[in-house]
Amino acid sequence: MTILIKGITLVPMDGKNEVIEETNIYLDEEIIHIGELKEDIEVERVIDGKNKVAMPGLINAHTHIGMSLLRNFADDLPLHSWLTEKIWPTEAKLIAKDVYWGSLLSMVEMIQSGTTAFCDMYFFMDEVGKGLEEAGIRGVLTRGLIEENDEVVNKEKLRDTRDLFKNWHGKGNGRIKVMVAPHAPYTCSPDFLLETMKLANELNTGIHIHLSETKKEVEDSFKAFGKSPIKHVYDLGLLDIHTIAAHCVHVDEEDIEIMKEKNVYPVNNPGSNLKLASGFAPVDKMLKKGISVALGTDGSSSNNNLNMFEEINLAAIVNKAVNLDAVSVPAIDALGMATINGAKALDWDDEIGSIEIGKKGDLILIDMDKPHLYPRHNIISSLAYSVQAADVDTVIVDGKIIMEKREIKTLDVEKIKYMTEKHAKDLISR
Amino acid sequence: MTILIKGITLVPMDGKNEVIEETNIYLDEEIIHIGELKEDIEVERVIDGKNKVAMPGLINAHTHIGMSLLRNFADDLPLHSWLTEKIWPTEAKLIAKDVYWGSLLSMVEMIQSGTTAFCDMYFFMDEVGKGLEEAGIRGVLTRGLIEENDEVVNKEKLRDTRDLFKNWHGKGNGRIKVMVAPHAPYTCSPDFLLETMKLANELNTGIHIHLSETKKEVEDSFKAFGKSPIKHVYDLGLLDIHTIAAHCVHVDEEDIEIMKEKNVYPVNNPGSNLKLASGFAPVDKMLKKGISVALGTDGSSSNNNLNMFEEINLAAIVNKAVNLDAVSVPAIDALGMATINGAKALDWDDEIGSIEIGKKGDLILIDMDKPHLYPRHNIISSLAYSVQAADVDTVIVDGKIIMEKREIKTLDVEKIKYMTEKHAKDLISR
Repeated sequence: MTILIKGITLVPMDGKNEVIEETNIYLDEEIIHIGELKEDIEVERVIDGKNKVAMPGLINAHTHIGMSLLRNFADDLPLHSWLTEKIWPTEAKLIAKDVYWGSLLSMVEMIQSGTTAFCDMYFFMDEVGKGLEEAGIRGVLTRGLIEENDEVVNKEKLRDTRDLFKNWHGKGNGRIKVMVAPHAPYTCSPDFLLETMKLANELNTGIHIHLSETKKEVEDSFKAFGKSPIKHVYDLGLLDIHTIAAHCVHVDEEDIEIMKEKNVYPVNNPGSNLKLASGFAPVDKMLKKGISVALGTDGSSSNNNLNMFEEINLAAIVNKAVNLDAVSVPAIDALGMATINGAKALDWDDEIGSIEIGKKGDLILIDMDKPHLYPRHNIISSLAYSVQAADVDTVIVDGKIIMEKREIKTLDVEKIKYMTEKHAKDLISR
Repeated sequence: MTILIKGITLVPMDGKNEVIEETNIYLDEEIIHIGELKEDIEVERVIDGKNKVAMPGLINAHTHIGMSLLRNFADDLPLHSWLTEKIWPTEAKLIAKDVYWGSLLSMVEMIQSGTTAFCDMYFFMDEVGKGLEEAGIRGVLTRGLIEENDEVVNKEKLRDTRDLFKNWHGKGNGRIKVMVAPHAPYTCSPDFLLETMKLANELNTGIHIHLSETKKEVEDSFKAFGKSPIKHVYDLGLLDIHTIAAHCVHVDEEDIEIMKEKNVYPVNNPGSNLKLASGFAPVDKMLKKGISVALGTDGSSSNNNLNMFEEINLAAIVNKAVNLDAVSVPAIDALGMATINGAKALDWDDEIGSIEIGKKGDLILIDMDKPHLYPRHNIISSLAYSVQAADVDTVIVDGKIIMEKREIKTLDVEKIKYMTEKHAKDLISR
């Protein structure tokens, strides 16, 4: 189906920091044409772009979407009690169907807030694959691998990932990718990390891992290995593989040099890092070094939502205060983190992350006709500092309309709300 | 008109940290009854409370609402250039009608995001008074007093405040108050501050002032007076008057002792303090000291919105990271800052800030039937960490329905958007 978006303001995020007023976008599975109207292109749908802004779909580069079942379940607790007394014991009781419904709830929330692609790390990832096929958005599935004291179980977990790759990589018209996800250097021994690397190389895919999220984790790494988590995985050769490195909060100069040298893709999760009291990642320093920092929400139980516009705003404003510099992480950079940098992290920038001819038809339309978006002095500022999730009007992925006038076309929202409430209550009473 | 809100979940914010499920609220200008249904109370309107939460209307305790005309006009600039090259030269060209329309736009935005009362500091405050009468919400008007090198002008500014008080204090069925607003100790000499204090005492009203917003301001105060801005105004006797102290970012132990001793009402503005790189106010420390910290958005040109739910979330999560303590400023405290503490700051807690029998009928209903508010493990967490401005469904002030199903009943939203765009464009091209 060819769609014409007519008379739209376009923020392409193609590196030129442009805002193109009153243009037209033709797309099907790919972006066909941007500019003047073309009489010779046959169109099946015309969307009026008046009072709207088109921008690339947002990319949530690090999340655990099944965790939405535990949203607002355990808050205002010290990190250790939160994990060991609340989250982990509850997660141990998860069944596949919990993850299916929790993931669908998250996909509804992501679509409603303008996210068209995400990188997920969780369990029962087949369920997330099924959800992705239904939802029609784009995602990287990674099965979180925490090493256990049982060689058989560990082998099984690796086999899970191999099966996941076989069953899902490239599926959904190419909307689904699979990567390998050793959870973190503090939950995986060097030997186990080497096995995950071997698997990633065998599958010719990337790695998704947590690195240097907390101060304690870094201190423990120095105690155990005499080096930082990033230096540790660097020395193991892990960073020779395409690596999505979630968090990277407590990183030093050497870590930053390594990330630059190895083209590591750090994912900043400001909402989660604030709420869990993890600290402030040196985003400004990494960006200025030329490192492509992406943006993520982390799971809904440490945020407590999957609203990328909130993360864009946080990335822009928090770094200013941390660096005592009101110019730090300007609006355009924060938007870049949530779009093109996210695409690079997901090894997908050949197809998504900006609106350019030949790229996939993944874009969102923002309804600018809201009181809090008046007056209109600067669209880039508006997107980073004023736009709210609820201002996302239309979501298109792979040239298909996933949401229009805030109505989701692909999923049964009422059923999903009902089923998640049911599964959540059942889970915590198990 | 007597309204019954039937079968509602109530978060009264009356100090007991309760969530009351399935209750009923009867109100007219005041809250009449909370609890079981009362057949003997004649009601004119019944609002179905299913899937909704009632909480007190939010109180924005420090803002400059006319500044919405400059929203997204000047961002990502160092504070000094922002003020001296952009904001102040533009504000110098403001006319009364600009402030009228800008203030109405802000009132629309506040209503749509659940704010029912605010404390404003700006110029042409008669225009804000007119807007308040129309909008039907509640506000404290304060005319910002920056001392000039001209005795006649200074006297005129004080007379402005006296006239403002005479014309507006108690108007709008008591929904409007007026206080005296010396802008800051760095823009008002001790003598001028004494004159504003004299005026506040004469009018028997409070003071609204900026205190210790930036590091430079505090350093300059030590250079000029050998003490902090807070100690400086304390020594002048200003804090013997009810004082709303905006910002209080760079405060030391002695400042905190003074605030406690004198019952000063600091207003935390996390969004603005982050965006302008002012720093992090010691909110946790002040709260633990028993100081009633309120919450505000500051103006739209340093935020860039008037969304109090965003500030609640920021207050809760930012302080956790600053204090490396995930328990710092829990959800209930952040909600208290935006409700009962705001009422105390505005010297209005006898009438607003909590839902209790005998208090004014000022409350908001949140639509909880949104995907990002499922599942429902904890309503308090949900309000602080997940609820968005757009989830505010109904706003009632003084027993009158100001917004229902997101439709504003008191203001012509289309005209206000049109007129603010026009005035904003005209202003910057003057």
